[in-house]
Amino acid sequence: MSIDAERLRKTHEQLKADAEAGGYHLNPDAEWTLGLVEGLLTNEGRYGYPACPCRLASGKKEDDLDIICPCDYRDPDLSEWGACYCALYVSDEVLDGKRALQAVPERRPAKRERRAPEPQAAAGIRLWRCRVCGYLCAREEPPGVCPVCKAKRDRFEPFVLPPSAIPVT
Amino acid sequence: MSIDAERLRKTHEQLKADAEAGGYHLNPDAEWTLGLVEGLLTNEGRYGYPACPCRLASGKKEDDLDIICPCDYRDPDLSEWGACYCALYVSDEVLDGKRALQAVPERRPAKRERRAPEPQAAAGIRLWRCRVCGYLCAREEPPGVCPVCKAKRDRFEPFVLPPSAIPVT
Amino acid sequence: MSIDAERLRKTHEQLKADAEAGGYHLNPDAEWTLGLVEGLLTNEGRYGYPACPCRLASGKKEDDLDIICPCDYRDPDLSEWGACYCALYVSDEVLDGKRALQAVPERRPAKRERRAPEPQAAAGIRLWRCRVCGYLCAREEPPGVCPVCKAKRDRFEPFVLPPSAIPVT
Repeated sequence: MSIDAERLRKTHEQLKADAEAGGYHLNPDAEWTLGLVEGLLTNEGRYGYPACPCRLASGKKEDDLDIICPCDYRDPDLSEWGACYCALYVSDEVLDGKRALQAVPERRPAKRERRAPEPQAAAGIRLWRCRVCGYLCAREEPPGVCPVCKAKRDRFEPFVLPPSAIPVT
Repeated sequence: MSIDAERLRKTHEQLKADAEAGGYHLNPDAEWTLGLVEGLLTNEGRYGYPACPCRLASGKKEDDLDIICPCDYRDPDLSEWGACYCALYVSDEVLDGKRALQAVPERRPAKRERRAPEPQAAAGIRLWRCRVCGYLCAREEPPGVCPVCKAKRDRFEPFVLPPSAIPVT
Repeated sequence: MSIDAERLRKTHEQLKADAEAGGYHLNPDAEWTLGLVEGLLTNEGRYGYPACPCRLASGKKEDDLDIICPCDYRDPDLSEWGACYCALYVSDEVLDGKRALQAVPERRPAKRERRAPEPQAAAGIRLWRCRVCGYLCAREEPPGVCPVCKAKRDRFEPFVLPPSAIPVT
Protein backbone atom coordinates (compact mmCIF):
# COMPACT_ATOMS: atom_id res chain seq x y z
CA MET A 1 0.00 0.00 0.00
CA SER A 2 1.39 3.42 -0.86
CA ILE A 3 0.94 6.16 1.67
CA ASP A 4 0.16 9.67 0.57
CA ALA A 5 3.08 12.03 1.39
CA GLU A 6 0.82 14.68 2.86
CA ARG A 7 -0.92 12.17 5.12
CA LEU A 8 2.47 10.85 6.22
CA ARG A 9 3.70 14.33 7.07
CA LYS A 10 0.56 15.19 9.03
CA THR A 11 0.55 11.94 10.96
CA HIS A 12 4.19 12.43 11.85
CA GLU A 13 3.50 15.96 13.03
CA GLN A 14 0.54 14.89 15.15
CA LEU A 15 2.48 12.00 16.72
CA LYS A 16 5.32 14.37 17.50
CA ALA A 17 3.03 16.97 19.06
CA ASP A 18 1.27 14.30 21.16
CA ALA A 19 4.61 12.88 22.24
CA GLU A 20 6.02 16.23 23.34
CA ALA A 21 2.81 17.22 25.10
CA GLY A 22 3.09 14.07 27.23
CA GLY A 23 6.82 14.36 27.89
CA TYR A 24 7.86 11.82 25.26
CA HIS A 25 10.13 12.32 22.23
CA LEU A 26 10.15 10.87 18.74
CA ASN A 27 13.49 9.77 17.33
CA PRO A 28 15.04 12.91 15.80
CA ASP A 29 16.35 10.87 12.84
CA ALA A 30 13.63 12.00 10.43
CA GLU A 31 14.23 9.34 7.80
CA TRP A 32 14.03 6.53 10.33
CA THR A 33 10.98 7.98 12.00
CA LEU A 34 9.08 8.62 8.77
CA GLY A 35 9.72 5.03 7.72
CA LEU A 36 8.14 3.83 10.96
CA VAL A 37 5.18 6.18 10.62
CA GLU A 38 4.65 4.82 7.12
CA GLY A 39 4.63 1.32 8.61
CA LEU A 40 2.05 2.43 11.17
CA LEU A 41 -0.21 3.84 8.47
CA THR A 42 0.21 0.67 6.40
CA ASN A 43 -0.82 -1.43 9.40
CA GLU A 44 -3.73 0.93 10.08
CA GLY A 45 -4.93 0.26 6.53
CA ARG A 46 -4.27 -3.47 6.68
CA TYR A 47 -5.63 -4.29 10.14
CA GLY A 48 -7.68 -1.28 11.11
CA TYR A 49 -5.27 -0.30 13.91
CA PRO A 50 -1.69 0.99 13.97
CA ALA A 51 0.12 -2.16 15.07
CA CYS A 52 3.86 -1.86 15.80
CA PRO A 53 5.73 -1.74 12.47
CA CYS A 54 8.61 -3.84 13.88
CA ARG A 55 6.54 -6.80 15.03
CA LEU A 56 4.33 -9.31 13.29
CA ALA A 57 0.69 -8.54 14.09
CA SER A 58 -1.85 -11.34 14.18
CA GLY A 59 -4.58 -9.21 12.65
CA LYS A 60 -6.88 -10.15 15.53
CA LYS A 61 -7.26 -6.94 17.48
CA GLU A 62 -7.72 -8.50 20.91
CA ASP A 63 -4.44 -10.39 20.49
CA ASP A 64 -2.62 -7.30 19.25
CA LEU A 65 -3.81 -4.68 21.75
CA ASP A 66 -0.48 -4.74 23.56
CA ILE A 67 1.43 -3.88 20.35
CA ILE A 68 -0.78 -1.08 19.08
CA CYS A 69 1.60 1.88 18.95
CA PRO A 70 2.51 3.21 21.48
CA CYS A 71 2.81 -0.35 22.75
CA ASP A 72 2.55 -1.56 26.35
CA TYR A 73 6.33 -2.06 26.32
CA ARG A 74 7.40 1.43 25.25
CA ASP A 75 7.73 2.92 28.69
CA PRO A 76 9.66 0.09 30.36
CA ASP A 77 11.94 0.02 27.28
CA LEU A 78 12.48 3.79 27.45
CA SER A 79 13.46 3.40 31.12
CA GLU A 80 15.79 0.47 30.57
CA TRP A 81 17.19 1.00 27.05
CA GLY A 82 16.52 4.65 26.22
CA ALA A 83 14.31 3.73 23.27
CA CYS A 84 11.30 1.63 22.40
CA TYR A 85 11.68 -1.62 20.48
CA CYS A 86 11.44 0.24 17.12
CA ALA A 87 13.39 3.30 18.29
CA LEU A 88 10.40 5.41 17.29
CA TYR A 89 10.39 6.88 20.81
CA VAL A 90 13.63 7.83 22.54
CA SER A 91 14.45 9.02 26.05
CA ASP A 92 15.74 12.44 27.07
CA GLU A 93 19.23 10.98 27.48
CA VAL A 94 19.26 9.64 23.94
CA LEU A 95 17.80 12.87 22.56
CA ASP A 96 20.50 14.89 24.32
CA GLY A 97 23.25 12.61 23.04
CA LYS A 98 24.13 11.43 26.56
CA ARG A 99 23.27 7.85 25.73
CA ALA A 100 23.77 5.87 22.52
CA LEU A 101 20.98 3.98 20.82
CA GLN A 102 21.35 0.22 20.94
CA ALA A 103 19.31 -2.77 19.91
CA VAL A 104 16.37 -3.25 22.27
CA PRO A 105 15.59 -6.88 23.08
CA GLU A 106 11.98 -8.02 22.68
CA ARG A 107 10.17 -7.65 26.00
CA ARG A 108 6.81 -8.94 24.79
CA PRO A 109 6.05 -12.29 26.39
CA ALA A 110 5.36 -15.32 24.23
CA LYS A 111 1.66 -15.59 23.52
CA ARG A 112 0.88 -18.27 26.04
CA GLU A 113 2.39 -16.16 28.83
CA ARG A 114 0.63 -12.95 27.95
CA ARG A 115 -1.42 -11.92 30.91
CA ALA A 116 -5.15 -11.62 30.53
CA PRO A 117 -6.41 -8.65 32.52
CA GLU A 118 -6.71 -10.04 36.02
CA PRO A 119 -7.89 -8.58 39.28
CA GLN A 120 -4.42 -7.77 40.53
CA ALA A 121 -1.62 -5.47 39.53
CA ALA A 122 1.03 -6.99 37.27
CA ALA A 123 4.32 -7.85 38.93
CA GLY A 124 6.69 -4.91 39.11
CA ILE A 125 3.99 -2.27 38.87
CA ARG A 126 4.18 0.32 41.64
CA LEU A 127 2.33 3.49 42.44
CA TRP A 128 4.39 6.64 41.83
CA ARG A 129 3.62 10.16 43.00
CA CYS A 130 5.04 13.40 41.64
CA ARG A 131 6.18 15.33 44.71
CA VAL A 132 5.65 18.60 42.84
CA CYS A 133 2.04 18.33 41.72
CA GLY A 134 0.72 15.09 43.21
CA TYR A 135 0.20 13.29 39.87
CA LEU A 136 -0.22 9.55 40.40
CA CYS A 137 0.55 6.74 38.00
CA ALA A 138 1.06 2.98 38.13
CA ARG A 139 4.19 1.79 36.31
CA GLU A 140 7.38 -0.16 36.84
CA GLU A 141 9.47 3.03 36.91
CA PRO A 142 8.41 6.67 37.08
CA PRO A 143 8.02 8.53 33.75
CA GLY A 144 10.88 10.65 32.36
CA VAL A 145 8.97 13.81 33.16
CA CYS A 146 5.69 14.39 34.92
CA PRO A 147 3.06 14.76 32.19
CA VAL A 148 1.21 17.32 34.30
CA CYS A 149 3.89 19.65 35.65
CA LYS A 150 7.00 18.56 33.70
CA ALA A 151 9.05 17.85 36.82
CA LYS A 152 11.78 15.33 36.08
CA ARG A 153 11.86 11.66 36.99
CA ASP A 154 13.83 12.16 40.19
CA ARG A 155 10.94 14.16 41.67
CA PHE A 156 8.75 11.05 41.81
CA GLU A 157 8.44 8.92 44.94
CA PRO A 158 7.01 5.44 45.43
CA PHE A 159 3.59 6.07 46.90
CA VAL A 160 1.76 4.40 49.71
CA LEU A 161 -1.85 5.47 50.03
CA PRO A 162 -2.90 7.50 53.03
CA PRO A 163 -5.17 5.52 55.37
CA SER A 164 -7.92 8.09 54.62
CA ALA A 165 -8.13 6.67 51.09
CA ILE A 166 -8.70 3.09 52.18
CA PRO A 167 -12.33 2.02 52.61
CA VAL A 168 -13.35 0.71 56.00
CA THR A 169 -14.51 -2.86 55.59
CA MET B 1 -28.30 39.59 28.60
CA SER B 2 -26.59 40.07 25.27
CA ILE B 3 -23.22 38.45 24.80
CA ASP B 4 -20.49 40.23 22.90
CA ALA B 5 -19.68 38.37 19.65
CA GLU B 6 -15.94 38.56 20.21
CA ARG B 7 -16.24 37.15 23.73
CA LEU B 8 -18.45 34.38 22.43
CA ARG B 9 -15.93 33.47 19.73
CA LYS B 10 -13.00 33.49 22.17
CA THR B 11 -14.81 31.41 24.77
CA HIS B 12 -15.79 28.89 22.12
CA GLU B 13 -12.20 28.67 20.89
CA GLN B 14 -10.84 28.20 24.42
CA LEU B 15 -13.42 25.52 25.25
CA LYS B 16 -12.56 23.74 22.04
CA ALA B 17 -8.82 23.87 22.68
CA ASP B 18 -9.29 22.62 26.26
CA ALA B 19 -11.56 19.84 25.03
CA GLU B 20 -9.14 18.62 22.37
CA ALA B 21 -6.16 18.84 24.71
CA GLY B 22 -7.94 16.50 27.11
CA GLY B 23 -9.20 14.09 24.44
CA TYR B 24 -12.74 15.51 24.32
CA HIS B 25 -14.58 17.02 21.35
CA LEU B 26 -17.11 19.82 21.03
CA ASN B 27 -20.09 19.22 18.77
CA PRO B 28 -18.92 20.16 15.25
CA ASP B 29 -22.32 21.78 14.52
CA ALA B 30 -21.09 25.34 15.01
CA GLU B 31 -24.50 26.97 15.28
CA TRP B 32 -25.66 24.53 17.96
CA THR B 33 -22.42 24.82 19.87
CA LEU B 34 -22.30 28.61 19.78
CA GLY B 35 -25.85 28.72 21.11
CA LEU B 36 -24.79 26.59 24.08
CA VAL B 37 -21.67 28.66 24.70
CA GLU B 38 -23.88 31.75 24.72
CA GLY B 39 -26.04 30.02 27.32
CA LEU B 40 -22.96 29.28 29.41
CA LEU B 41 -21.86 32.90 29.29
CA THR B 42 -25.38 34.05 30.18
CA ASN B 43 -25.38 31.74 33.20
CA GLU B 44 -21.89 32.91 34.14
CA GLY B 45 -23.24 36.48 34.22
CA ARG B 46 -26.44 35.54 36.02
CA TYR B 47 -25.10 33.17 38.67
CA GLY B 48 -21.36 33.74 38.68
CA TYR B 49 -20.62 30.26 37.29
CA PRO B 50 -21.28 28.58 33.92
CA ALA B 51 -24.18 26.32 34.87
CA CYS B 52 -25.41 23.87 32.22
CA PRO B 53 -27.49 25.80 29.66
CA CYS B 54 -29.94 22.89 29.30
CA ARG B 55 -30.87 22.56 32.94
CA LEU B 56 -32.50 24.85 35.46
CA ALA B 57 -29.89 26.07 37.92
CA SER B 58 -30.89 26.93 41.48
CA GLY B 59 -28.50 29.87 41.68
CA LYS B 60 -27.06 28.44 44.90
CA LYS B 61 -23.58 27.36 43.90
CA GLU B 62 -23.26 24.45 46.33
CA ASP B 63 -26.46 22.95 44.93
CA ASP B 64 -25.36 23.48 41.34
CA LEU B 65 -21.75 22.26 41.48
CA ASP B 66 -22.64 19.04 39.70
CA ILE B 67 -24.09 20.93 36.71
CA ILE B 68 -21.34 23.48 36.23
CA CYS B 69 -20.16 22.77 32.67
CA PRO B 70 -18.54 20.31 32.06
CA CYS B 71 -21.01 18.62 34.40
CA ASP B 72 -20.45 15.53 36.54
CA TYR B 73 -22.63 13.60 34.09
CA ARG B 74 -20.78 14.40 30.85
CA ASP B 75 -18.40 11.49 30.86
CA PRO B 76 -20.91 8.73 31.73
CA ASP B 77 -23.22 10.22 29.07
CA LEU B 78 -20.42 10.29 26.48
CA SER B 79 -19.75 6.61 27.22
CA GLU B 80 -23.38 5.55 27.09
CA TRP B 81 -24.97 7.93 24.57
CA GLY B 82 -22.10 9.45 22.61
CA ALA B 83 -22.94 12.95 23.77
CA CYS B 84 -23.53 14.94 26.93
CA TYR B 85 -27.04 15.98 27.96
CA CYS B 86 -26.76 19.20 25.88
CA ALA B 87 -24.80 17.61 23.03
CA LEU B 88 -22.13 20.24 23.61
CA TYR B 89 -19.58 17.42 23.92
CA VAL B 90 -19.67 14.44 21.58
CA SER B 91 -17.73 11.18 21.44
CA ASP B 92 -15.22 10.08 18.78
CA GLU B 93 -17.85 7.81 17.26
CA VAL B 94 -20.32 10.66 16.86
CA LEU B 95 -17.62 12.98 15.54
CA ASP B 96 -16.59 10.39 12.95
CA GLY B 97 -20.19 9.81 11.88
CA LYS B 98 -20.16 6.21 13.13
CA ARG B 99 -22.91 6.89 15.61
CA ALA B 100 -25.95 9.15 15.35
CA LEU B 101 -26.81 11.76 17.94
CA GLN B 102 -29.91 11.00 19.95
CA ALA B 103 -31.73 12.53 22.86
CA VAL B 104 -29.83 11.91 26.10
CA PRO B 105 -32.02 11.15 29.10
CA GLU B 106 -31.40 13.14 32.29
CA ARG B 107 -28.98 11.26 34.51
CA ARG B 108 -28.89 13.81 37.31
CA PRO B 109 -30.56 12.40 40.41
CA ALA B 110 -33.47 14.23 41.99
CA LYS B 111 -32.25 16.66 44.60
CA ARG B 112 -33.02 14.57 47.65
CA GLU B 113 -30.97 11.70 46.23
CA ARG B 114 -27.94 13.72 45.27
CA ARG B 115 -25.02 12.34 47.16
CA ALA B 116 -23.20 14.60 49.56
CA PRO B 117 -19.47 13.91 49.39
CA GLU B 118 -19.10 10.86 51.60
CA PRO B 119 -16.11 8.84 52.69
CA GLN B 120 -16.61 6.14 50.10
CA ALA B 121 -16.47 5.88 46.34
CA ALA B 122 -19.78 6.28 44.54
CA ALA B 123 -21.35 3.09 43.23
CA GLY B 124 -20.04 2.11 39.83
CA ILE B 125 -16.76 4.02 40.13
CA ARG B 126 -13.72 1.89 39.40
CA LEU B 127 -10.03 2.52 39.12
CA TRP B 128 -8.73 2.43 35.54
CA ARG B 129 -5.10 2.24 34.40
CA CYS B 130 -3.72 3.08 30.98
CA ARG B 131 -1.52 0.14 30.05
CA VAL B 132 0.60 2.42 27.87
CA CYS B 133 1.62 5.17 30.28
CA GLY B 134 0.24 4.14 33.66
CA TYR B 135 -2.25 7.02 33.97
CA LEU B 136 -4.82 6.31 36.68
CA CYS B 137 -8.34 7.63 36.97
CA ALA B 138 -11.52 6.79 38.87
CA ARG B 139 -14.63 6.63 36.70
CA GLU B 140 -17.46 4.32 35.72
CA GLU B 141 -15.87 3.61 32.32
CA PRO B 142 -12.41 4.46 30.98
CA PRO B 143 -12.05 7.73 29.02
CA GLY B 144 -12.24 7.75 25.21
CA VAL B 145 -8.54 8.43 24.99
CA CYS B 146 -5.86 8.64 27.63
CA PRO B 147 -5.40 12.35 28.41
CA VAL B 148 -1.68 11.79 28.95
CA CYS B 149 -0.55 9.57 26.06
CA LYS B 150 -3.63 9.55 23.78
CA ALA B 151 -3.92 5.75 23.78
CA LYS B 152 -7.48 4.71 23.02
CA ARG B 153 -10.09 3.43 25.45
CA ASP B 154 -9.35 -0.24 24.81
CA ARG B 155 -5.84 0.20 26.25
CA PHE B 156 -7.26 0.80 29.74
CA GLU B 157 -7.58 -1.99 32.30
CA PRO B 158 -9.50 -2.15 35.57
CA PHE B 159 -6.84 -1.60 38.20
CA VAL B 160 -6.21 -3.29 41.49
CA LEU B 161 -3.56 -1.62 43.58
CA PRO B 162 -0.28 -3.40 44.17
CA PRO B 163 0.13 -4.49 47.80
CA SER B 164 3.15 -2.15 48.01
CA ALA B 165 0.74 0.81 47.81
CA ILE B 166 -1.42 -0.30 50.73
CA PRO B 167 -0.43 1.02 54.14
CA VAL B 168 0.33 -1.52 56.82
CA THR B 169 -2.12 -1.05 59.64
CA MET C 1 27.59 34.10 35.04
CA SER C 2 25.86 36.18 32.41
CA ILE C 3 22.80 34.72 30.76
CA ASP C 4 22.20 35.20 27.08
CA ALA C 5 19.08 37.36 26.48
CA GLU C 6 17.70 35.03 23.83
CA ARG C 7 18.09 31.98 26.09
CA LEU C 8 16.40 33.88 28.92
CA ARG C 9 13.47 34.79 26.69
CA LYS C 10 13.04 31.25 25.40
CA THR C 11 13.28 29.69 28.85
CA HIS C 12 10.70 32.12 30.16
CA GLU C 13 8.36 31.33 27.26
CA GLN C 14 8.71 27.58 27.76
CA LEU C 15 8.13 27.86 31.52
CA LYS C 16 5.06 29.95 30.87
CA ALA C 17 3.65 27.53 28.30
CA ASP C 18 4.27 24.57 30.62
CA ALA C 19 2.66 26.42 33.50
CA GLU C 20 -0.47 27.34 31.55
CA ALA C 21 -0.81 23.86 30.06
CA GLY C 22 -0.90 22.43 33.60
CA GLY C 23 -3.25 25.05 35.03
CA TYR C 24 -0.51 27.11 36.70
CA HIS C 25 0.41 30.75 36.12
CA LEU C 26 3.69 32.64 36.17
CA ASN C 27 3.74 36.00 37.92
CA PRO C 28 2.56 38.53 35.30
CA ASP C 29 5.15 41.06 36.55
CA ALA C 30 7.60 40.45 33.69
CA GLU C 31 10.59 42.14 35.29
CA TRP C 32 10.23 40.14 38.50
CA THR C 33 9.69 36.90 36.65
CA LEU C 34 12.61 37.37 34.26
CA GLY C 35 14.89 38.05 37.23
CA LEU C 36 13.85 34.72 38.75
CA VAL C 37 14.27 32.86 35.46
CA GLU C 38 17.76 34.33 35.23
CA GLY C 39 18.43 32.98 38.72
CA LEU C 40 17.20 29.55 37.66
CA LEU C 41 19.52 29.52 34.64
CA THR C 42 22.41 30.67 36.80
CA ASN C 43 21.75 27.82 39.23
CA GLU C 44 21.40 25.40 36.32
CA GLY C 45 24.89 26.42 35.19
CA ARG C 46 26.35 26.40 38.69
CA TYR C 47 24.86 23.18 40.05
CA GLY C 48 23.57 21.35 37.01
CA TYR C 49 19.93 21.75 38.07
CA PRO C 50 17.60 24.75 38.40
CA ALA C 51 17.53 25.14 42.16
CA CYS C 52 15.15 27.72 43.60
CA PRO C 53 16.66 31.19 43.10
CA CYS C 54 15.35 32.39 46.48
CA ARG C 55 16.94 29.69 48.59
CA LEU C 56 20.50 28.64 49.31
CA ALA C 57 21.20 25.38 47.51
CA SER C 58 23.73 22.94 48.95
CA GLY C 59 25.02 21.94 45.52
CA LYS C 60 24.45 18.27 46.43
CA LYS C 61 21.58 17.24 44.21
CA GLU C 62 20.07 14.65 46.55
CA ASP C 63 19.83 17.27 49.29
CA ASP C 64 18.35 19.86 46.94
CA LEU C 65 15.74 17.76 45.08
CA ASP C 66 12.91 19.35 47.05
CA ILE C 67 13.94 22.86 45.96
CA ILE C 68 14.49 22.20 42.27
CA CYS C 69 11.98 24.56 40.61
CA PRO C 70 9.05 23.96 40.69
CA CYS C 71 9.76 23.01 44.29
CA ASP C 72 7.87 20.52 46.46
CA TYR C 73 6.41 23.49 48.35
CA ARG C 74 4.93 25.42 45.41
CA ASP C 75 1.50 23.85 45.44
CA PRO C 76 0.82 24.06 49.18
CA ASP C 77 2.06 27.67 49.08
CA LEU C 78 -0.20 28.48 46.12
CA SER C 79 -3.15 27.07 48.09
CA GLU C 80 -2.34 28.87 51.30
CA TRP C 81 -0.69 32.11 50.18
CA GLY C 82 -1.59 32.54 46.52
CA ALA C 83 2.05 32.40 45.43
CA CYS C 84 5.13 30.23 45.78
CA TYR C 85 8.00 31.26 48.05
CA CYS C 86 9.62 33.26 45.19
CA ALA C 87 6.32 34.53 43.74
CA LEU C 88 7.38 33.00 40.43
CA TYR C 89 4.07 31.12 40.38
CA VAL C 90 0.84 32.81 41.42
CA SER C 91 -2.71 31.56 41.91
CA ASP C 92 -5.78 32.43 39.84
CA GLU C 93 -6.95 34.77 42.59
CA VAL C 94 -3.69 36.72 42.53
CA LEU C 95 -3.63 36.77 38.73
CA ASP C 96 -7.17 38.15 38.65
CA GLY C 97 -6.35 40.81 41.23
CA LYS C 98 -8.73 39.31 43.80
CA ARG C 99 -5.95 38.65 46.24
CA ALA C 100 -2.83 40.68 47.01
CA LEU C 101 0.65 39.20 46.97
CA GLN C 102 2.27 38.95 50.35
CA ALA C 103 5.47 37.55 51.77
CA VAL C 104 5.34 33.75 51.86
CA PRO C 105 6.94 32.19 54.95
CA GLU C 106 9.46 29.40 54.38
CA ARG C 107 7.68 26.05 54.50
CA ARG C 108 10.75 23.91 53.88
CA PRO C 109 11.62 21.94 57.00
CA ALA C 110 15.04 22.27 58.59
CA LYS C 111 17.39 19.70 57.13
CA ARG C 112 17.26 17.24 59.99
CA GLU C 113 13.47 17.06 59.72
CA ARG C 114 13.29 16.60 55.98
CA ARG C 115 11.56 13.36 55.33
CA ALA C 116 13.42 10.65 53.50
CA PRO C 117 11.05 8.83 51.14
CA GLU C 118 9.36 6.35 53.42
CA PRO C 119 6.77 3.68 52.87
CA GLN C 120 3.87 5.83 53.95
CA ALA C 121 2.14 8.93 52.74
CA ALA C 122 3.30 12.19 54.30
CA ALA C 123 0.99 13.70 56.89
CA GLY C 124 -1.71 15.85 55.35
CA ILE C 125 -1.61 14.18 51.93
CA ARG C 126 -5.02 13.01 50.74
CA LEU C 127 -6.33 11.47 47.57
CA TRP C 128 -8.41 13.86 45.46
CA ARG C 129 -10.69 12.99 42.56
CA CYS C 130 -12.00 15.33 39.89
CA ARG C 131 -15.72 14.66 39.73
CA VAL C 132 -15.77 15.73 36.08
CA CYS C 133 -13.12 13.51 34.51
CA GLY C 134 -11.97 11.17 37.27
CA TYR C 135 -8.40 12.52 37.49
CA LEU C 136 -6.71 11.41 40.70
CA CYS C 137 -3.90 13.10 42.58
CA ALA C 138 -2.34 12.97 46.02
CA ARG C 139 -1.86 16.36 47.64
CA GLU C 140 -2.75 18.35 50.75
CA GLU C 141 -5.38 20.36 48.86
CA PRO C 142 -6.85 19.87 45.38
CA PRO C 143 -5.19 21.76 42.51
CA GLY C 144 -6.55 25.14 41.34
CA VAL C 145 -7.84 23.55 38.17
CA CYS C 146 -7.90 19.97 37.00
CA PRO C 147 -4.86 19.54 34.72
CA VAL C 148 -6.83 17.13 32.52
CA CYS C 149 -10.25 18.75 32.04
CA LYS C 150 -9.72 22.23 33.53
CA ALA C 151 -12.59 21.92 36.00
CA LYS C 152 -12.06 24.22 38.96
CA ARG C 153 -10.93 23.30 42.44
CA ASP C 154 -14.44 23.01 43.87
CA ARG C 155 -15.17 20.09 41.54
CA PHE C 156 -12.66 17.88 43.40
CA GLU C 157 -13.73 15.51 46.16
CA PRO C 158 -11.68 13.65 48.76
CA PHE C 159 -11.45 10.14 47.38
CA VAL C 160 -11.80 6.79 49.06
CA LEU C 161 -10.88 3.86 46.84
CA PRO C 162 -13.61 1.50 45.71
CA PRO C 163 -13.26 -1.94 47.31
CA SER C 164 -12.72 -3.35 43.78
CA ALA C 165 -9.33 -1.61 43.71
CA ILE C 166 -8.06 -3.15 46.94
CA PRO C 167 -6.12 -6.40 46.59
CA VAL C 168 -7.46 -9.41 48.46
CA THR C 169 -4.82 -10.54 50.91
